[in-house]
Amino acid sequence: MCTAITPASGGDAAVNVDAVLIDLDGVLYVGDAPVPGAVEALEWLLDEEIPFRCVTNTTRRSRQSVAARLRDLGFAIPEAWCFTPAMAAVRRLGEEGIAACHLIATGDVHRDFEEAGIRLAAGEAPYVAVGDAGDRWTYESMNRAFRLLVGGARLLALERDRYWRDTDGLALSAGPFVAALEYAAGVTAEVVGKPSPAFFRLALADLGVQAERAVMVGDDVATDIGGAKIAGLAAVLVRTGKFRPEALAASPVAPDRVLGSIADLPALLDRRT
Amino acid sequence: MCTAITPASGGDAAVNVDAVLIDLDGVLYVGDAPVPGAVEALEWLLDEEIPFRCVTNTTRRSRQSVAARLRDLGFAIPEAWCFTPAMAAVRRLGEEGIAACHLIATGDVHRDFEEAGIRLAAGEAPYVAVGDAGDRWTYESMNRAFRLLVGGARLLALERDRYWRDTDGLALSAGPFVAALEYAAGVTAEVVGKPSPAFFRLALADLGVQAERAVMVGDDVATDIGGAKIAGLAAVLVRTGKFRPEALAASPVAPDRVLGSIADLPALLDRRT
Repeated sequence: MCTAITPASGGDAAVNVDAVLIDLDGVLYVGDAPVPGAVEALEWLLDEEIPFRCVTNTTRRSRQSVAARLRDLGFAIPEAWCFTPAMAAVRRLGEEGIAACHLIATGDVHRDFEEAGIRLAAGEAPYVAVGDAGDRWTYESMNRAFRLLVGGARLLALERDRYWRDTDGLALSAGPFVAALEYAAGVTAEVVGKPSPAFFRLALADLGVQAERAVMVGDDVATDIGGAKIAGLAAVLVRTGKFRPEALAASPVAPDRVLGSIADLPALLDRRT
Repeated sequence: MCTAITPASGGDAAVNVDAVLIDLDGVLYVGDAPVPGAVEALEWLLDEEIPFRCVTNTTRRSRQSVAARLRDLGFAIPEAWCFTPAMAAVRRLGEEGIAACHLIATGDVHRDFEEAGIRLAAGEAPYVAVGDAGDRWTYESMNRAFRLLVGGARLLALERDRYWRDTDGLALSAGPFVAALEYAAGVTAEVVGKPSPAFFRLALADLGVQAERAVMVGDDVATDIGGAKIAGLAAVLVRTGKFRPEALAASPVAPDRVLGSIADLPALLDRRT
């Protein structure tokens, strides 16, 4: 299959795409409300047999848990079509033939590793994988990770965001703890979450599609659009979620197209079969 | 009073000094054993009324606790003559007229702040002071510090060492947690521990002596000698503790003199009264 991004206005060149990456929060839903027309847009992609992945930067949920949340919001997406930094990590370890990993993360993210046959080792392991871990960050868990890194393990960061907005105020994401371990052990983490090029590369490997044949749809001009363009994908910005005209105007990276919302995606994808 | 560092060999120019900074671990004692002649060297300084400070980079002990340990090892040093990063922090806050501080540290370091009349605030405070805190590092304590920094508090690092050797292996020092908070809040910590110039400046302020009238005696060519030279002090390296000829040969900074041990200090200080 093959689709093309045609200019809705202006002189953009058409971009042929075989697959779509779609950000979740702010694109498919805002808060607990689906974006109007989003459910239909995904149904159209499924009907047209255009493969896609619902991509999110959460490192607190397994793919199964992400799919369940989407189902609750009215999106019937196959679990295997959800792609998270944990899945990117699993794919990255698979590339290296790694069967064991020391994981520091919260929620049920460990399931993604276990289901892929990666043993979660408390002691010796060739990789230390770090996600948003909340209360699992302790002096003891930091020391354990540090000692593994000093012993030669490599540091894999599921993300390196600075913070997120919890119910009672700002709360640290994985980034500060990644920075701490880098400083302590004198190493540089390999980041597999957005906006790292690795995230897009691994999501596309999951789809079996080349970057120049894919488009990313997101509401964050830096993380989604900037990340996708650096990775070589076409990029479509939507005016929902965290979209701000000022951020778009100030961005050094321009999206290939700007849509009102994901509801406009079917009209944009001019299928050429 | 006025002393001069005279060349024991070679053509070093004599350096007049009014005061001495002396590192503890590796200079006055190694492990639990006083360096031979060290007790007598300090007694000579006291007899000659040459003011000095026993300086250490520990952020796990109050000045009182440092003096008590020295007493156990046979060194009768007035408590006020022990100078630690916590004392440097207290002096630094005093310079700014700061009366409250959010402190994250272990041991009895809080005493140094309390005795100086600095209120240790759990909530709002203009400074977050961070030392070696061991198990006091939790996700909650990190978040609390982070929120204060985002709210405009300044970050004061008692030290930013990477790690130390605990009984069961390497353990993280304050540095990695300072790096984490810097990354999270987008700030740069002000470091008051060795080898920062601030440490030497504040120790000299405690003595009321200018840098060019003081000498530092240490066993670490980088931290003690490099730090002191950058701060404008004369610097004497001793061949005890962590002294390694290779480290001296590789060092970009040369000490003004190298002594066998602190026992040779009286002979070096050629008093001119």
